[in-house]
Amino acid sequence: MAIQVAVCGPRDCTSEDESNAREVGRLLAERGAVVICGGYTGVMAAVAAGARSAGGTVVGILSRADRENANPDLSIVIPTGVGEARNNIIVNSGDAVIVIGGSWGTLSELALAMRRGRTPVVQLGGWRLLDEEGHPLAGVRHASSPEEALTATGLWSGH
Amino acid sequence: MAIQVAVCGPRDCTSEDESNAREVGRLLAERGAVVICGGYTGVMAAVAAGARSAGGTVVGILSRADRENANPDLSIVIPTGVGEARNNIIVNSGDAVIVIGGSWGTLSELALAMRRGRTPVVQLGGWRLLDEEGHPLAGVRHASSPEEALTATGLWSGH
Amino acid sequence: MAIQVAVCGPRDCTSEDESNAREVGRLLAERGAVVICGGYTGVMAAVAAGARSAGGTVVGILSRADRENANPDLSIVIPTGVGEARNNIIVNSGDAVIVIGGSWGTLSELALAMRRGRTPVVQLGGWRLLDEEGHPLAGVRHASSPEEALTATGLWSGH
Amino acid sequence: MAIQVAVCGPRDCTSEDESNAREVGRLLAERGAVVICGGYTGVMAAVAAGARSAGGTVVGILSRADRENANPDLSIVIPTGVGEARNNIIVNSGDAVIVIGGSWGTLSELALAMRRGRTPVVQLGGWRLLDEEGHPLAGVRHASSPEEALTATGLWSGH
Repeated sequence: MAIQVAVCGPRDCTSEDESNAREVGRLLAERGAVVICGGYTGVMAAVAAGARSAGGTVVGILSRADRENANPDLSIVIPTGVGEARNNIIVNSGDAVIVIGGSWGTLSELALAMRRGRTPVVQLGGWRLLDEEGHPLAGVRHASSPEEALTATGLWSGH
Repeated sequence: MAIQVAVCGPRDCTSEDESNAREVGRLLAERGAVVICGGYTGVMAAVAAGARSAGGTVVGILSRADRENANPDLSIVIPTGVGEARNNIIVNSGDAVIVIGGSWGTLSELALAMRRGRTPVVQLGGWRLLDEEGHPLAGVRHASSPEEALTATGLWSGH
Repeated sequence: MAIQVAVCGPRDCTSEDESNAREVGRLLAERGAVVICGGYTGVMAAVAAGARSAGGTVVGILSRADRENANPDLSIVIPTGVGEARNNIIVNSGDAVIVIGGSWGTLSELALAMRRGRTPVVQLGGWRLLDEEGHPLAGVRHASSPEEALTATGLWSGH
Repeated sequence: MAIQVAVCGPRDCTSEDESNAREVGRLLAERGAVVICGGYTGVMAAVAAGARSAGGTVVGILSRADRENANPDLSIVIPTGVGEARNNIIVNSGDAVIVIGGSWGTLSELALAMRRGRTPVVQLGGWRLLDEEGHPLAGVRHASSPEEALTATGLWSGH
């Protein structure tokens, strides 16, 4: 079975987030990883487009019970019908989770992935999280480029 | 995007159910359809094995949040973590739903697929459902062989 | 903590189902049980109205993420936002499950409750279920009146 | 129908969080609000105990499908069986959401409540969230005491 990487990010993203997502998708596909994403627009569409451009497989885990507004680059569509609860399913499905950019929905996915605690979580851009004393929270891996994001997952550390 | 067909059935199934499921999986893969199933044992494992034997793609929508007990023939694993609520996700993900054999979990999937009302639902073997007057319930399509089950979906009616 | 009883049934129900549901709600409230229901119209509204008429507590487990179309007799509203997956939550929340009338959604709840296998499941009216040989399925308790439905739960068997 | 307030916080909480949660629960009960919480230990148990001490109603929305490990102060128990996806149900059920203390699960609830965007979200203690430029994120209401937390919801602003 192929490695599966969940990639999360905002519907309304910056052009830098979009470009990062497209590149992350392309790199993941080149390494043979299946991309798991939310299946709609913004970062979700960009990572799907990037993966498909390199011949990859993309699974869209939709909040809706039908395919309305799903992006056109999905290989497989899972219309969960469970609303925002699908965020849990996305992060549960990745051997690693890469979070690109910042939004409340995206932060919920980052937090759920850290709560799960079983897989590497990599942040590329996006919001900053500090504890009560103002120190950065431990555990999240930070990357400053798509290449670094893949490296930070540790999934290809043998390369 | 490929056609997706959800195939549901009991963990503890008869040998006839198992043989039917394996053949349904094989036929679906030969026609290029992606198989969506519950990802564990019994009918779920048989349909996955059949599809993989013909080079097909199989998605396992698991009740657990991890991959424990997932069968070995899944191409893609979605560990939903939502328990039996994953039955809804399975039936929502099919362009048609084929139900093989009888159990309470399987009946819930048949009922959810009919409740959804958007896609063909085909029953191969399994329990019988009658209305309050004792008449068979309208809507479910009945098949008596794997080949008939695929035909009854209507997805390949143009062939 | 009070006994909790889940009551399930169709949106579009017969007048007999509606009258049965109202009476079941009233009887449950008189015995101090909390009623768990789907929170919308038909049997769900009738059981809520019956329970409230006797001063009872009614919890509505909604499919939507907001309160739109919730019936007016709910004491507590849980807008799950998980769509039809909320059926699992309803049946999981009852110390017993009473199913009134027949519909595909209602059948899914009956099947999920039997699949769960931990609590008594009582059917008042509704569809008939037979195994592959045409014999009635074991396990479901049948009642022919609201009073019998409560008795059949076994929750008040000491009375 | 009574006002419903969701109160979220860590299982492993500080003694200050626990004391704050107990007081928030007591104050909510005194104002007639129903407390919605996750139903287990830490902040969840403290807010339940506080509310019950003042005769209030507490609903526990559990991740498990059964009542194992539920705290003893719940009036109503909803064993969802949907795992961490129950966090969405908790925040959807509040006319306001109060978050006490910091943990990844708690942060997911804060983020989901802000993502929902329909109800006031109040933070009492806990982690700090900054945008990409290092500015505090807009929208979350901050309180420094249980009394302030209730005031910040705006639900009793007419008082």
